[in-house]
Amino acid sequence: MTRSTAPETVPTEELRAVLDGRWAHVRQDTRAQLAEQDLRPDPDFTSEQYRAHIGESMKLLTASGRPLTGFDPAVGGDGDVGGVVTAFAMLAYGDLSLLVKAGVQWGLFGGAVQVLGTERHHERYLRQIIDGELLGCFAMTESGHGSDVQHLHTTATYDRDAGEFVIDTPYPAARKEYIGNAARDGRMAVVFAQLITDDTRPGVHAFLVPLRDAEGRPLPGVTIGDDGRKAGLNGVDNGRLSFARVRVPRENLLNRFADVAADGTYSSPIANETARFFTMLGTLVRGRISVAGGAGGAAQKALALAVRFGERRRQFSHPSTGEEIAVLDYLAHQRKLLPALATTYALHFTQDDLVARMHAVQAPGAGPVGAREQRTLEQSAAGIKAVATWHATQTIQTCREACGGAGYLEENLLPALKADTDVFTTFEGDNTVLLQLLAKELLSDYGRTIKKGNPLEIAPLLGRQLAGVLAERTGAASLTRRLPLRWLDLSDRRRRRELLETRRDDTLATAIRHLAPAMRKGNDEFAVFNDAQDLLLVAARAHVDVLVETSFREAVEKVREPAVRELLGRVYDLHVLTTIERERAWYLETGRLTAAESRSLRPLVNDLCAELRPHARTLVDGFGVPENRLACPMLDDAAWEPVPSGTPPAPTEQVETG
Amino acid sequence: MTRSTAPETVPTEELRAVLDGRWAHVRQDTRAQLAEQDLRPDPDFTSEQYRAHIGESMKLLTASGRPLTGFDPAVGGDGDVGGVVTAFAMLAYGDLSLLVKAGVQWGLFGGAVQVLGTERHHERYLRQIIDGELLGCFAMTESGHGSDVQHLHTTATYDRDAGEFVIDTPYPAARKEYIGNAARDGRMAVVFAQLITDDTRPGVHAFLVPLRDAEGRPLPGVTIGDDGRKAGLNGVDNGRLSFARVRVPRENLLNRFADVAADGTYSSPIANETARFFTMLGTLVRGRISVAGGAGGAAQKALALAVRFGERRRQFSHPSTGEEIAVLDYLAHQRKLLPALATTYALHFTQDDLVARMHAVQAPGAGPVGAREQRTLEQSAAGIKAVATWHATQTIQTCREACGGAGYLEENLLPALKADTDVFTTFEGDNTVLLQLLAKELLSDYGRTIKKGNPLEIAPLLGRQLAGVLAERTGAASLTRRLPLRWLDLSDRRRRRELLETRRDDTLATAIRHLAPAMRKGNDEFAVFNDAQDLLLVAARAHVDVLVETSFREAVEKVREPAVRELLGRVYDLHVLTTIERERAWYLETGRLTAAESRSLRPLVNDLCAELRPHARTLVDGFGVPENRLACPMLDDAAWEPVPSGTPPAPTEQVETG
Repeated sequence: MTRSTAPETVPTEELRAVLDGRWAHVRQDTRAQLAEQDLRPDPDFTSEQYRAHIGESMKLLTASGRPLTGFDPAVGGDGDVGGVVTAFAMLAYGDLSLLVKAGVQWGLFGGAVQVLGTERHHERYLRQIIDGELLGCFAMTESGHGSDVQHLHTTATYDRDAGEFVIDTPYPAARKEYIGNAARDGRMAVVFAQLITDDTRPGVHAFLVPLRDAEGRPLPGVTIGDDGRKAGLNGVDNGRLSFARVRVPRENLLNRFADVAADGTYSSPIANETARFFTMLGTLVRGRISVAGGAGGAAQKALALAVRFGERRRQFSHPSTGEEIAVLDYLAHQRKLLPALATTYALHFTQDDLVARMHAVQAPGAGPVGAREQRTLEQSAAGIKAVATWHATQTIQTCREACGGAGYLEENLLPALKADTDVFTTFEGDNTVLLQLLAKELLSDYGRTIKKGNPLEIAPLLGRQLAGVLAERTGAASLTRRLPLRWLDLSDRRRRRELLETRRDDTLATAIRHLAPAMRKGNDEFAVFNDAQDLLLVAARAHVDVLVETSFREAVEKVREPAVRELLGRVYDLHVLTTIERERAWYLETGRLTAAESRSLRPLVNDLCAELRPHARTLVDGFGVPENRLACPMLDDAAWEPVPSGTPPAPTEQVETG
Repeated sequence: MTRSTAPETVPTEELRAVLDGRWAHVRQDTRAQLAEQDLRPDPDFTSEQYRAHIGESMKLLTASGRPLTGFDPAVGGDGDVGGVVTAFAMLAYGDLSLLVKAGVQWGLFGGAVQVLGTERHHERYLRQIIDGELLGCFAMTESGHGSDVQHLHTTATYDRDAGEFVIDTPYPAARKEYIGNAARDGRMAVVFAQLITDDTRPGVHAFLVPLRDAEGRPLPGVTIGDDGRKAGLNGVDNGRLSFARVRVPRENLLNRFADVAADGTYSSPIANETARFFTMLGTLVRGRISVAGGAGGAAQKALALAVRFGERRRQFSHPSTGEEIAVLDYLAHQRKLLPALATTYALHFTQDDLVARMHAVQAPGAGPVGAREQRTLEQSAAGIKAVATWHATQTIQTCREACGGAGYLEENLLPALKADTDVFTTFEGDNTVLLQLLAKELLSDYGRTIKKGNPLEIAPLLGRQLAGVLAERTGAASLTRRLPLRWLDLSDRRRRRELLETRRDDTLATAIRHLAPAMRKGNDEFAVFNDAQDLLLVAARAHVDVLVETSFREAVEKVREPAVRELLGRVYDLHVLTTIERERAWYLETGRLTAAESRSLRPLVNDLCAELRPHARTLVDGFGVPENRLACPMLDDAAWEPVPSGTPPAPTEQVETG
């Protein structure tokens, strides 16, 4: 980074072209659609009214033809997996209940039929699903098992005589819970259940189970509950499903990865039960990526609202001029919004890369997928979903507060953004569980060069391998003595990148260093991993930080227009510097930064905030949130009618006695 | 701290007696009342239904006689200022809309009449206000001026001929905004307006302005708008008020601190306009203290819900035993909830001290209040309000996430806690503005030993005074060379306390060091203060950290039962260690902690979490949130019917063919 002049003004369109990236045409179409249709919910809707409202919006979305484009050409789609996920994320500019309802119908329900089912399911159901004639559910989570879905308790027992599966909820804790589309609209569900056939129990499989008849009445044996009002997303009818020996034909097993013959014989190309289960789950990676995208869209909209408000809202007079100061000119306000904006940019490019990787793996004609490619895609999706949704929750909260009382009124859109996206941090995989999953995967990957196996076997081996370079109390630092220990100039981009990479590698090494000796002593596995759980989460987060930095850096490097590249470069700098600032205690503890270097972060970040302040509006406009979706009273021109300077006039001339 | 055996089990009642403190009898009464009355709102209420519901709850609260106790004996009250604020905070265990509606009616509206008015207002209005016959508003904030209320634009012009004030809203930006009780119920408002009389403009004063007639119709000249649906608190009717030359009698000026004679002559015992304005505002300090208390109650309830859930919710099997593990046994889960619980304890005792200080100043017969006493009370109230409300927002968010999908359902109470308390961070003073105010006060206090004056005059003086001990680049650290630089044992309580105190002093010195040279150069004041705004906010936060530590420490030291003292001591340790851990980058940057010491924080905190884990339930039960207020489906025994171990049974015996 050359700390030269402040960046030039950049036309919004040029910036937007860079942000729009590969699926620019999809983004433009979606923007046009969002600009045209704007059925805002009445904030005072009852849940039932809101659900009906979203039902109407779903019909408009069907009519747009967008959902079809994500499905395979065999059913008339374009197989544009990346495009449909990109468009989905942009629904966050509008009503998030619609985003989630659409995600349940076409992503989870339709997606499960597409990727877990075979031709017989595709031919019979996909068109109806795409056209919204058959609304359905994705019934995986149970009251007793959310994160640990491999151990869910619903059973599907094959009855050879009848050629049917019997779907059963053996105890209340096995009730399917939080199921979107269940309480009102769903006529069918993909139900995940423990398969039992021929006295074998080959694990969790997915079954198509009809829920309601054509009039919407629950079918015999199906009990449907309503989750009622939620913190947000009240246009989505979440509910509970229990099954009392409900029978479905043998053909309703979604049999792409395993089948049951008429005589009850089980077969699968994947012998290992856990491997099979995770293969099935892996095909559903699209859900996590979509949630990360939706979180990004919501954060973008929140920032667009808060930055515009911060430029117009003035508070306290300038001591010299007497003019009131725009709140975005206060350092503390910049510190709240601009680093969040920079990281939102970083995550935008990261998400685009993730979508492109998913597209490469899943789009029709993608060719055979390597196990490693699929694995790293799943790892990235898990980590980025966690980081992106937490970022959205924090950013929207910050934006709400930055708009004060105005930000608390539903009419100004921030409350719904906050409430609707709040569950993103815990659905489609709880964020903490996802980061832990990623960390265990990283341990395995790290160990794979030594020996194939699971993390529990590898940790001690890694420990021994690393033992030579580990000192007892200063392990992490000494591990990295090979690298230069002092970087005096934090304004050097390459060095900052190396700081992030070093942290990624060292935090993982530290986790291993804690795991390995404990494992060797033969302690119980739970205690060993639990004692290092915080370290594992840190390592996973550090891994994602590098993914995000890399995507952003590569995106900036590809930009041709010098002014846009310069501006984005500053945004990149702010993102990376605030990431390092956030973790500066670790850098200090490990001797990676001196105290003086660490203290230098504050003025660097403050200067960048000052430099980017004049570009804040351009930066949020770059996202291209349609204007009608940002329109709200707090940004209405009428609310900002200029107040005459000086003290207000006395209305004495108007005073009439008596 | 002696790292000895784990603390003994403590009876909940003993712990509660300590927590209940001075106003134990009020707490017991309020608990009984909350246990008896439990009118839960239907989460699907429209705003109008919810407002009507809260109207009914207000009547029950009136009937309890509690609001009366806070008023002066002259009107039949007990003058139990501390008791009524304590009871108010406990309403957070129930419906926060009721808490806020009650706060508006009796705290803000009734409180303003009590403390800004004189006998003529007390005699005429207070009984009606106390009995809920006269519902009213506190109309200070305007669309254009929230934080900077000294510059609000509503005018009150004295018309000598008529002997009336003319209240006027000169432009839309002067509209009163977010006013509780305005949209539906308020019949009168205390309106803050710029007084104009005899061509003088002596600043903002408060006037009683009737809003509606007996049938609830707005009076001539009064325009009332509705703020509509909000993120939360939808049982409160917030609205907008505009006045078109509305006339009120001269006697409607609340004239304790200033008066206008019949001939228009202005008089006040406080000559300086700003001093007078802040004296008027200072009497309203009770509002901020009440909000901090309410935030504390809400955080306590959220933790009670999440800890109980975390003890019952099990996820993933123990690798050796096969039994599923309670989520609160995971380190990451403990790290989420237990430090938040420890800080909630710390803030509980801090709040109790603050309430006692307020009581000492405000209760009838308190005697004359020293200016310094009043000032430090206001400073503490500002800082603690900011820290307590941010803590509540973060803690409730964490608790929601810690309960996963269950935490997102309204039936499980966390969503309303989050949404209702969200505005606490920006009302009754925006938190950032409050911390900045505190910081500027601290600068003044620091400078008072040198010369009386305002912070802008003092900063350069301080700078010169300190110049001798300040090195160019390592100022903060060298300032404190007098103190021991290395503390090797972070398990020593005294040393940890000194760390907090050092940080309080040094962060203020650092802010001064940045302000002083800039001021000397004759730069503009705004730029100078703005460049140091982040440092000022850090100093204010560090100041509050010491207030909180002191209150908690003193409370622990006073406990007589050894087991309770031991347990509370560990909670204290966890609070202080996680405070230091949060700020460890600063300690490292300033050479106050070595890298090894900083790294030692992690295992210390983890060990404390493990030690406190068995006491988590006792600790949340100590708050004494009434059981009926915690009852919800996710904690219902039926939801936790034990699942038989092993794989679920196949329902084959029940399968009937055909």
